[in-house]
Amino acid sequence: MNCEIIAIGSELLTPYRLDTNSLFLTERLNKIGVNVAFKTVVGDRRSHLTEAVKIALSRADIVILMGGLGPTEDDLTREAVADAMGKSVKRDSDLVAQLYSRAAARRSALTANNMKQADILDGAIVLENSRGTAPGQWLDTVWGEHRKLVMMLPGPPLELKPMFDEQCIPLLRDALPQRHIATRTLKAAMIGESAADTRIAPIYTKFKDVETTILAHMGDIQLNLICSKRTPDTAQQRVNELASRIEEELDDLIYSSQGESLEQIVLYYLGMHGSTLSVAESCTGGLVAQRLTSISGSSRSFLGGAVVYSNELKTAFADVPPEMIEKHGAVSREVAVALAEGIRKRAGSTYGLGVTGIAGPMGGTEEKPVGLVFVALSDGKETEVVEKRFSGDRERIRMWASQQALDLVRRKLM
Amino acid sequence: MNCEIIAIGSELLTPYRLDTNSLFLTERLNKIGVNVAFKTVVGDRRSHLTEAVKIALSRADIVILMGGLGPTEDDLTREAVADAMGKSVKRDSDLVAQLYSRAAARRSALTANNMKQADILDGAIVLENSRGTAPGQWLDTVWGEHRKLVMMLPGPPLELKPMFDEQCIPLLRDALPQRHIATRTLKAAMIGESAADTRIAPIYTKFKDVETTILAHMGDIQLNLICSKRTPDTAQQRVNELASRIEEELDDLIYSSQGESLEQIVLYYLGMHGSTLSVAESCTGGLVAQRLTSISGSSRSFLGGAVVYSNELKTAFADVPPEMIEKHGAVSREVAVALAEGIRKRAGSTYGLGVTGIAGPMGGTEEKPVGLVFVALSDGKETEVVEKRFSGDRERIRMWASQQALDLVRRKLM
Repeated sequence: MNCEIIAIGSELLTPYRLDTNSLFLTERLNKIGVNVAFKTVVGDRRSHLTEAVKIALSRADIVILMGGLGPTEDDLTREAVADAMGKSVKRDSDLVAQLYSRAAARRSALTANNMKQADILDGAIVLENSRGTAPGQWLDTVWGEHRKLVMMLPGPPLELKPMFDEQCIPLLRDALPQRHIATRTLKAAMIGESAADTRIAPIYTKFKDVETTILAHMGDIQLNLICSKRTPDTAQQRVNELASRIEEELDDLIYSSQGESLEQIVLYYLGMHGSTLSVAESCTGGLVAQRLTSISGSSRSFLGGAVVYSNELKTAFADVPPEMIEKHGAVSREVAVALAEGIRKRAGSTYGLGVTGIAGPMGGTEEKPVGLVFVALSDGKETEVVEKRFSGDRERIRMWASQQALDLVRRKLM
Repeated sequence: MNCEIIAIGSELLTPYRLDTNSLFLTERLNKIGVNVAFKTVVGDRRSHLTEAVKIALSRADIVILMGGLGPTEDDLTREAVADAMGKSVKRDSDLVAQLYSRAAARRSALTANNMKQADILDGAIVLENSRGTAPGQWLDTVWGEHRKLVMMLPGPPLELKPMFDEQCIPLLRDALPQRHIATRTLKAAMIGESAADTRIAPIYTKFKDVETTILAHMGDIQLNLICSKRTPDTAQQRVNELASRIEEELDDLIYSSQGESLEQIVLYYLGMHGSTLSVAESCTGGLVAQRLTSISGSSRSFLGGAVVYSNELKTAFADVPPEMIEKHGAVSREVAVALAEGIRKRAGSTYGLGVTGIAGPMGGTEEKPVGLVFVALSDGKETEVVEKRFSGDRERIRMWASQQALDLVRRKLM
C-alpha cells in the first residue's frame, strides 16, 4: 500500500525549516510494510491545502497530514480534509468538555477558535493527544470507490510521535494485510559511499527481495536492509543472509551490525576490557571528546583530555617537547605520537589518543597540505600512528579525522 | 509569482535522507521576490513523476525540478517533463560532442544511456554544469494559456548551487517583474522561542509589509526579516526600521545583527580586544571547544583547554582541589569557578571559562537535578559565575550549556 505524507505550515516553505517528522513516519511505516510514494509540503492556505488533499487521495491509499490542528485561524487541516472528502464536521461534546476543564485548570477563557479543536470529521476516530491540546483524527473510509486511510496528526514532534506509535500503528496493523518485515542496519567506518557501493552492489543486487539503502556521512556508512515476507522467519533469514555476505566483503570495515554508532561501539569495547581513554586534540578541537561524551554513561570509560590548539598547550597539557614541534612542526607524525603518549600519562588512562592536522581552509603548505591529519594511539607499551590526507571543507576534514581517531581505538580493542 | 519545487529520487522517500536543496533554492528565490508555495518529493517512477509535473504546472508559475538528470535508467526527469508538457525531445549535437570528448578524456566508452544527457526539450535553454556531466535545462513557455518557467537542475548540491546562482538567477531576474528585496538577520542567545515571540510579536505584526520568521534552536534564536518594494531604498528602510525596534525590545539578548553565529561573535570580540580564551569543560565534554574551533582562524584567539570529565582530570588539568570536589561536589558553583581560574592560569590566556553540570539522563539527585549547570568566566581579577537549570534531553542540555558559556564571554567583552 502506498502512502503520501503532507506537512502543513507556511514556516515549512521558508529557507529556515524542514519537515523532519516525515523521516520518523517513513521509518515506522516501512517497518509495517507501507511504502511512502509522495511527500508534499503546503502552506496555511485553505484552497492550497484542500487541493493537496484531493491530489493525495487520488494517488495514495494512505494519507497522513501533519500540522494545522491547533486553535488559530491558520489551522485549517480539519476544514480542508472535510472539503476535499465531502464530509461533514461535528463538534464532539466529550472533546468540548475536555477543552473546558483544561481551560479551567489554567484559569483561561475558551475562545471560539479554541473550540475548533473539538471538530471531528464524520466517521473519524479521535486520537488522544497526551502532550498537547489538539487531538488527532483517524479515518478509514471509502473515497471514489477506493478504501482510504487518512490520519490527521499534530505538527510538534513531541506530540506526533507518541500519538503515531501508540494509536496509529495498532490501527494500521489491523487495517493492513498481514506482512512481516525484517530489518538490519550495518555500519562501516573510513570508507566512502562510492567505494562501498562498488564492493557491495554485486552482492545486494542479487537479493531482489531485500531493499538495501546506503547512507553515507563523512567517513561513516550506514547500510539499511529491509525485507517483507509472509512469515517472520523467511524475512529475517533473507536479511541475515545478505548481512553476512556484506560483512564478509567489507570485513573489518564493519564496526556495528545492529545499528550502534561508532562512539557507542568504542565505549562498549572500552567497558568490556575495563579500560579507560583520554584524548589530546589539535585540529579536531574537541570533536572527538564531544562525540564520546554525547553518549550517556561515557564517564565510566572516557576520562577526558585536552584541546591543545596552541603549541604551548601541546606542551603544557601533553608534554610535547617544544623542540619537537620546532623540528617537525605541530602537524607531524612525531607530535601525534607525543600527544597520545603525553595525554595517556597525564590522564592516567589505559589508552591515549592524539590528533593533529590541518583542517583548513588556511594553513596548508605544499609539503603539508590542507587535509593532512595524523592520529596516534598509545597503550603505554607501543604507539600506533596513522597518516591520512582528507579532502573537502573544514567541517568534513574534522569529521573524517574524528572518525579515524575513534576507528583506531576500535581496531585496537576489537 | 508562485513556485513549486519538486525533489526527485526514491532515496528521498526513505527514512534516511531529506531534500535540503529546497532550503537553498527558497532562500535565493525569496531574495528576488518569488514565494515557494509547494514542495513535493517523488520517487524514480515515470508515471508518478509525470503526474507530479502536471500538478505543479497547474498550481504554480515556476516549477523547479531537482534530480533525475543523470545517465542511468532511473533518471527520468527529461522524459517526464516532456510527457507532462506535450513537448518533444531533441538530441543536442553540441552536447553529444561534449559527452564524447569527456568520455575520451576518461578513456571510457559512451553507453546509449549516457547519450540521454544530451536530450533537450523543444524550446529549452541548456544550463551548463561546471561540476558534473548532466546539464540542466531552462524553459520559458506557455502551458494551458499561462506562462510557465520550468527549470530542470541536477540533484547533487555541488552541481545545483552554482548552476542556479550563475545561470538561473540572471534568467529569472530578466523574466520577472522588477521588485527589490531587502533582508536582515538578527540573532539572540539564551531565550526560548515562545518567550522571544511574546516580546516581539506586538512589534513585527505592525509591519505587515515585512515578513518575519523566527527560527529557534536550543538557546539560539534567528529572526529573519524580509521586505519587497518597488525601490531598494524603501525596502531597506522598512527592514531596518523593524530591526531597530526589535533590537530595542530584546536589547542585549541580541548578539548579532548581520547573521553571524555566536561563536563567530565571541571570536570577533576576542580578536578586537587582542585577548585569548581557554576552556575547561565537564558536562559539555568538548562541545564549547568544538564550536569555537569549527570557525576558521579561531586559533588566533582560542588557545584550547581541557575536557575534564573525571574528577582526577579536574585536578590534573585545572588545579581544582580534590577537597573542594569532595565538599561541594563536582557540579557546584565553587568547582565552576575553580575550573575557570585554573584553566586560565594553566593555558596562560586572558580569559578562562569553566563549565560543569549534569547532562543526564542519569546522575541527577533531588538536590542537584539533571539540567543543573554552572558556568564561570575568569579574567584573572574576578570570576563571574552563572547557575542555570536547563530542561530537555542530554543533547539539549549540553547545547544550552555551551550556548550559556559562549554568551557569558560575549557579555563580558561587549
